[in-house]
Amino acid sequence: MPAGVSRTEFRNAMARVCAPVNIVTTNGPAGRGGFTATAMCSVTDEPPTLLVCMNGRSAQAQLFLANKRFCVNVLTPEHRDLANLFAGGTADMGARYAAASWITMAGGTEALADAIVSFDCTLEDVQRVGTHHVFIGRVESLRARTDGNALAYFDRNYVQVPSLLAS
Amino acid sequence: MPAGVSRTEFRNAMARVCAPVNIVTTNGPAGRGGFTATAMCSVTDEPPTLLVCMNGRSAQAQLFLANKRFCVNVLTPEHRDLANLFAGGTADMGARYAAASWITMAGGTEALADAIVSFDCTLEDVQRVGTHHVFIGRVESLRARTDGNALAYFDRNYVQVPSLLAS
Repeated sequence: MPAGVSRTEFRNAMARVCAPVNIVTTNGPAGRGGFTATAMCSVTDEPPTLLVCMNGRSAQAQLFLANKRFCVNVLTPEHRDLANLFAGGTADMGARYAAASWITMAGGTEALADAIVSFDCTLEDVQRVGTHHVFIGRVESLRARTDGNALAYFDRNYVQVPSLLAS
Repeated sequence: MPAGVSRTEFRNAMARVCAPVNIVTTNGPAGRGGFTATAMCSVTDEPPTLLVCMNGRSAQAQLFLANKRFCVNVLTPEHRDLANLFAGGTADMGARYAAASWITMAGGTEALADAIVSFDCTLEDVQRVGTHHVFIGRVESLRARTDGNALAYFDRNYVQVPSLLAS
């Protein structure tokens, strides 16, 4: 039988997986929230669906569960400072939002105006796994730029991933 | 109400999200399988858990469900050809495996010998979302290199993401 993997071993190994950096917003009756997330991926295109993982112990988790909608904004290298703010650089949600421009999507969520892509989602389902929630989001509308490099997180650092669209 | 998002719009938008490239293997009573996946992320470190999405229409899905174990191997730029093989470059599973070296993990899964990281998982849970399965994997053991650049997929191309560990 395997001896098991410690939290530290797991975290160090996951630091070696490059991941896209996103700001996930929510708004609605429960209030406005937003956090930086790297655990996001596509699930299926029938119907268009993605998922995002969030710590259930976060005070913000209840906002997402109550508002039942969120927007995943995929960041470019120009958004490093904004990513840090939404990762806890300030706890003041007003200050986080004041640092960028936002556009209201068809589903009512708030999209970062210059995100590489924004996915406007309704919260279709939630799966609880250990300490975390897996939010399953049905994509109701989206905005996408046709240019822009990607911001990734790898080896606990931000890295610019160049777009090959222009080459 | 939102007008909805077409499959093509969704796929084009998701192509603009950079993602790590992985080969996910399974073995056991049902036989040996393996495919290239970019939809993988960390879920929680209590207990160490990740997830991978897989098309439920794939013939291989039944192997994963029956074997109840899998290994996520995170690739480096040197694995582009291997990634293409496991993405369908050949349907012959023997040929796919013959193209690389493998190591048996504590949990019995097969790890790519020179992967940047390999996560040896038991299939803890499966959530069905549209056409796809979300496999929740409990990490039983792992192997990790302390060097190596990452292979990402962005704008429908492979991109090398440089490690900053040496800098």
